[in-house]
Amino acid sequence: MSWLIKGALIVPLAGEKPWFTGDIAVIDDKIAAIGDDLTPAYNDLKKIPAQGFIAMPGLINAHTHIVMNLLRGCGDDMPLEDWLSKRIFPLENRLTADTARAGAMSGVLEMLASGVTAFCDSYFFMDEVAKAALQSGMRANLSRGLTDSGGGGAERLREGVALVKNWDGQGGGRIKVWLSPHAPYTCGDSYLREIEAEAAELGVGLNIHVAETRREVDDSLAAYGKTPVERLNDLSLFDRVPTLAAHCVWLSPADQAILRQKGVAVVHNPQSNLKLGSGIGPIPALLAAGVPVALGTDGAASNNNLDLWEEIRAAALIHKGAGQDPTLMPAAAVLRVACPAGAAAIGFPECGTLEVGKKADILLVDIDRPNMRPLLDPLSQLVYSAGALNVDTVLIDGRLVLRRQEFLTLDQERILAEAQAAAEKLFGGDTWVAV
Amino acid sequence: MSWLIKGALIVPLAGEKPWFTGDIAVIDDKIAAIGDDLTPAYNDLKKIPAQGFIAMPGLINAHTHIVMNLLRGCGDDMPLEDWLSKRIFPLENRLTADTARAGAMSGVLEMLASGVTAFCDSYFFMDEVAKAALQSGMRANLSRGLTDSGGGGAERLREGVALVKNWDGQGGGRIKVWLSPHAPYTCGDSYLREIEAEAAELGVGLNIHVAETRREVDDSLAAYGKTPVERLNDLSLFDRVPTLAAHCVWLSPADQAILRQKGVAVVHNPQSNLKLGSGIGPIPALLAAGVPVALGTDGAASNNNLDLWEEIRAAALIHKGAGQDPTLMPAAAVLRVACPAGAAAIGFPECGTLEVGKKADILLVDIDRPNMRPLLDPLSQLVYSAGALNVDTVLIDGRLVLRRQEFLTLDQERILAEAQAAAEKLFGGDTWVAV
Repeated sequence: MSWLIKGALIVPLAGEKPWFTGDIAVIDDKIAAIGDDLTPAYNDLKKIPAQGFIAMPGLINAHTHIVMNLLRGCGDDMPLEDWLSKRIFPLENRLTADTARAGAMSGVLEMLASGVTAFCDSYFFMDEVAKAALQSGMRANLSRGLTDSGGGGAERLREGVALVKNWDGQGGGRIKVWLSPHAPYTCGDSYLREIEAEAAELGVGLNIHVAETRREVDDSLAAYGKTPVERLNDLSLFDRVPTLAAHCVWLSPADQAILRQKGVAVVHNPQSNLKLGSGIGPIPALLAAGVPVALGTDGAASNNNLDLWEEIRAAALIHKGAGQDPTLMPAAAVLRVACPAGAAAIGFPECGTLEVGKKADILLVDIDRPNMRPLLDPLSQLVYSAGALNVDTVLIDGRLVLRRQEFLTLDQERILAEAQAAAEKLFGGDTWVAV
Repeated sequence: MSWLIKGALIVPLAGEKPWFTGDIAVIDDKIAAIGDDLTPAYNDLKKIPAQGFIAMPGLINAHTHIVMNLLRGCGDDMPLEDWLSKRIFPLENRLTADTARAGAMSGVLEMLASGVTAFCDSYFFMDEVAKAALQSGMRANLSRGLTDSGGGGAERLREGVALVKNWDGQGGGRIKVWLSPHAPYTCGDSYLREIEAEAAELGVGLNIHVAETRREVDDSLAAYGKTPVERLNDLSLFDRVPTLAAHCVWLSPADQAILRQKGVAVVHNPQSNLKLGSGIGPIPALLAAGVPVALGTDGAASNNNLDLWEEIRAAALIHKGAGQDPTLMPAAAVLRVACPAGAAAIGFPECGTLEVGKKADILLVDIDRPNMRPLLDPLSQLVYSAGALNVDTVLIDGRLVLRRQEFLTLDQERILAEAQAAAEKLFGGDTWVAV
C-alpha cells in the first residue's frame, strides 16, 4: 500500500527542523520521500490530504499487559499487597484462552485508537496477544512472563521458547518475541541464568520488571546483600543480549551507573507508578546520564487505560513538580522518549522517526480541535495539550489501520461487547456489579 | 427546555447508591425527578436516549484564566521568572479587547467540549469573558484581577466593582461576579482591606491566589514575618465573605488550621503546579481536615489545556505517588472535589450533584469506547480511564449545549480560526512560527 500524505505539519523527531510543512510519500512499508511538494514525483500514489493535521511517528507503548484490560477498575485505591493478593492473582487464575483473547483484542483496539503503533507485552496466553497484534496490524514485542518462585519455571520457559519459535518474525517482522524473566523477586539466580543463556542462544532480548517498589529493593538487599540491578548485573544478565528494564523507580547511583554502562533500556511507567504508590523514578537523571528511556502504560489494572498521551503528559509534568524545576523533561525530550527511544528499546530501531527509509508508522493528529488552537509550537502542543481525541489517522508498515477515527482492521462494537462479557464471566458476577 | 433522559447509568455523587440505572426528568433548568422508569409520569417530555452512557454532574473548573488560551504553548520548560517576565507579562501587555474576546471564546469552546459546565475566572478584559460565558450557555464565577503593586490599584478596583454591578446575576443567575485580589504578593495590606470591605458591602466573595510557590512563602515570611495565609487571616480577609484560595501548594500546619477554621475553599491545580515546578500541595491532608477543596486547570499558558479530566486523573494519582500510598485520594473523593465541592466553592451550591431540585447541569459520558470497556466500577472508570473524548452530551441549566460532540451554542470553526489569528497578531510573527 502506497500513499502520498499532502500538506501536513510534519514533526519528524529527527533532523534539524523540529517541524515544517510538507508531503510524505509512503511506498509499501517505508517512507520513500519527505519534501515540500512531492506531487510531481509521486502523483501516481493515492493522496491523503493532511492540511490541518500534524504528521508524527506512531507512539510506542514499551511496557504493558493488554490481557489485563479485563481487570480494568477491578481494584483501585488499595494497598499494593491487597491489590495483588485479593484482586489480581485470584482473577488471573481464572483466565482462560477465550477470556484472554477478549482482553487482548480490547487492548489493541484501545491502543490503536490513541495512536500507539507498537507495543511491548509480557504476560501469559501470549498466543492470543500475538494473534490480536497480527490482526490489528500493530507492531509488537511479545514475551511469556517467566517465574519460578512458585515452581513450574521450566514449563514456563519451554512456553516462552515456543513463543519465540512460533511467532518471532511473523507479520513481515511486525511480531518480535523476546524472553521475559518476570522480576528479580520472582526468579531465582539459576533460573535467571538459564533464561539469559536461552536468550543468547535464540538471539533475542530480555524484558524484566526491575526495582518497581522500595520494598523490592529492601527485600533484595536483605536476601542477597545487593540491589536488584546489582544482582542482575552480577548474574551477567546485561552482557550478551538487549535488556528492557521496566519501572526502575528505586535506583541507587550505582544502579544507574550499571544501567548506563551496560546499555540497559529503562521503561518509565509514570501513571502506574503513581497509582500503585510506588513513587517517582529518577528519569531526568537517567536521561542526563544517557540511559535509553522508553515510556509505557503498564496494564489497565494499574493505570487504568492504555493511552500513551497521558504517559507523555505525566512524564513531562511529574518530574518538574517533584523536582521543583520547570526545565526538567522538556517537550522535545519527552517526544523522543515516546517515539524513537521507545522504538529502539523494544527492538524496532527502524521505527520512531519520520525519515526516508524508516518504516511508515505515522499518525495524523487533528489540530483543528478546541484543545489544539491557537497552535504556536507543535512540540509543546503534542506534549502538553494533545490527546487520544486528536488522533485521526494511523498508518503502520504503510497500511492504513485507522482513518478519521474509524478502525479499518478491527470491529469495535464486537470487541467491546466480548471484552465486557469476558470480564463479567471472570468476576463471576458476585464481587462487582458489571454494567 | 425540558427533557427525559432515558436508561442512563446514573452517577449522582449524592445519596446512598454510587451508581444505578434509570431516568432523569429535567423541567426547565432543574432536575424534576430521578427514577427507574419515568416514562409514565413524564411521557410528554422530549426523550434523550442514554443507554450506553453515564449520566453525571457537569465538571467544575474552579480556577482558570481563559483569555490565556491565546498564550497556549508560548513558554514551556522555562524557569518561572523567565516565563513570567519574558513571555507572559509582555504578551499580556499587548492584549486588546478584540484579542481577549478570541481567547475567551476558545476557552469556553474547549471547556464545553470536555464537559465543564461551570468555571471560575479572574483576569482582565472580563467583559469579554462574561460575554463568552453567556453565549456558550455556561455558568461562571468571574472577577477582575486586582493588583496595586505597580500602581493603578484604585482604577482596577473600580473596574472590579463595575463588573459586579454590570454582570452579577446575568443569564438567569448563571453569571456570578466576585472580587479578586490577585495574590498577597501583588496587593498591599491596605488594598487587601479595601477590597475585602468592598466585597462585604457588595455581598460577594473573594478569589485569590495563595501560596503557589515556596518563594512566595519565603518572601512573605521575610517581609511580614508571616506566611501568606497568616497575613491574609490577620487582615480579616477570611471573616465576612466566602474566599476561594487558588493553589495553596505551600501551607504550614498552622496555615491549614486557619483555612479549616475559616471555611476557606482551596482550589487544587495539580498540572499547573507540576508544570511550573511549584510542587505538590498537601491536598489529602486538607481533605482529611475537612477543608473544602475544588479542582482547576489554571490558564492554558501553564497547563496547557482546559481539560478537567486530566486534573481529575492528576489529583487522583500524584498524591498516591508522592506519598507512596495508593489509598490516598480515592476515586469517589476526587469526583466529589471535581463536582459538588467545586460547585459550592465557586458559589453554585445548587449544582454539582444529580438530585431532585438541583440545577440540570448534566453530562452524558459515552461508555462504548475502547477506553471504557470492560466497565466494572463507573466511579473508577470516570476517574482513572475516562477523558474529554468520552463526553457526548452536555446540558447546562436544562439547556442542551453539546449533543453527540457537536456544539449547539458555539461555532467551532470560526472560534478556532479567530483564536489562531489573534494569537498570531499577539506574537507579531517574529518570535514563534505559528502554523
